Amino acid sequence: VRATQLLQQAEVVVFDDLGAAAAVEQYAPPAAQRVFVGKRGGRPSIRQAEIDAIIVQHATAGRMVVRLKGGCPSVFSRVHSEMAALQAAGVEYEVCPGVSSALAAPLAAGFPLTHPQLSRAFAVTSAHDPASLDWQALAAIDTLVLLMGGSSLALVVEQLQRHGRAAETPVAVVREAALPTQAAWRGTLGSIVSQTAGETLSPCIIIVGHVASLPMPSL
Amino acid sequence: VRATQLLQQAEVVVFDDLGAAAAVEQYAPPAAQRVFVGKRGGRPSIRQAEIDAIIVQHATAGRMVVRLKGGCPSVFSRVHSEMAALQAAGVEYEVCPGVSSALAAPLAAGFPLTHPQLSRAFAVTSAHDPASLDWQALAAIDTLVLLMGGSSLALVVEQLQRHGRAAETPVAVVREAALPTQAAWRGTLGSIVSQTAGETLSPCIIIVGHVASLPMPSL
Repeated sequence: VRATQLLQQAEVVVFDDLGAAAAVEQYAPPAAQRVFVGKRGGRPSIRQAEIDAIIVQHATAGRMVVRLKGGCPSVFSRVHSEMAALQAAGVEYEVCPGVSSALAAPLAAGFPLTHPQLSRAFAVTSAHDPASLDWQALAAIDTLVLLMGGSSLALVVEQLQRHGRAAETPVAVVREAALPTQAAWRGTLGSIVSQTAGETLSPCIIIVGHVASLPMPSL
Repeated sequence: VRATQLLQQAEVVVFDDLGAAAAVEQYAPPAAQRVFVGKRGGRPSIRQAEIDAIIVQHATAGRMVVRLKGGCPSVFSRVHSEMAALQAAGVEYEVCPGVSSALAAPLAAGFPLTHPQLSRAFAVTSAHDPASLDWQALAAIDTLVLLMGGSSLALVVEQLQRHGRAAETPVAVVREAALPTQAAWRGTLGSIVSQTAGETLSPCIIIVGHVASLPMPSL
């Protein structure tokens, strides 16, 4: 709600993917300048330093700038780089929290991340660069949420089993969560790779843990 | 935004603490019936089964019921119990994701939960019953977020150090995040208990990890 109020006052909107464009279309004034800075997996894209510079440049020119990100700025959004750039330039700013797909995608598929008996903790990470992760630590948490894991599902499944998760551990993959085009698969570490074979999975969220086997809503 | 649309259509609102009451006041029609089902730490409170029954009872009577929770239903909200009760009763429902304090409180204190160099994963848990947690696993994740930890901060600090986190590990405690009454403390596992001695900490979020030492906004 606060974010839509700010968007309605924007003179410049700097936005990226994951739903941000739709919000700009719906709420930003027609006269506001639109700057798209989305990064796309596998294609050359704008560098973070350039995005920081664009925001600072418009703000120091005295314009009301709204930097709109899909999801919540707290999660894999590089928001701190932008905050630091604004601070260094002496620009006043406000950061609004958002609805993170890490939490919203499981709900859209019909289950929460915590449960009194099945999940007392969850961990969120990015599977963009699976080799850099501490799989021993991640495998030990009740529920694991992996963002940007569309192309590394097989590797995720292998690493978790190597670090002690049973082949029977429930897994859900949710693609384009909460959109009319949403698709979701439920299976186990042992079954999910063959279940999703041949499917385009990006953008998706992978959830591993017993909550992923909670009864699917019948709607 | 979707949640406010639904609230405006409500005939019955079943709500609890953590900001829900303020939203009901602002958005629910004056004629809508209000049912408070908040649970309060340390005091006798309504049982989850009774809340489930209240929701089902109003819904099966044909009323448009909005069950409003503070934060996101995905995180420590018992939402699955309510969904299961509605399914069992054959009631159609929609679940809206929300802004979780687990992500919003760090942002309100000036830092995100992930950072390209400092934090590639974060875990969220409740410190309500610290003895039940797998501290070995939690201590191994870059960033740890603890909800309901106001009265167990000393125990949290002790367990994390016992399981390998250094006394120099940064810690932030954020009380009443994003409210005008917000208070935040930044320190380390070695210092935070004495820094917050004598303070009322509940309701608070505890964040442990290097992101908690990112420069504080100068605003």
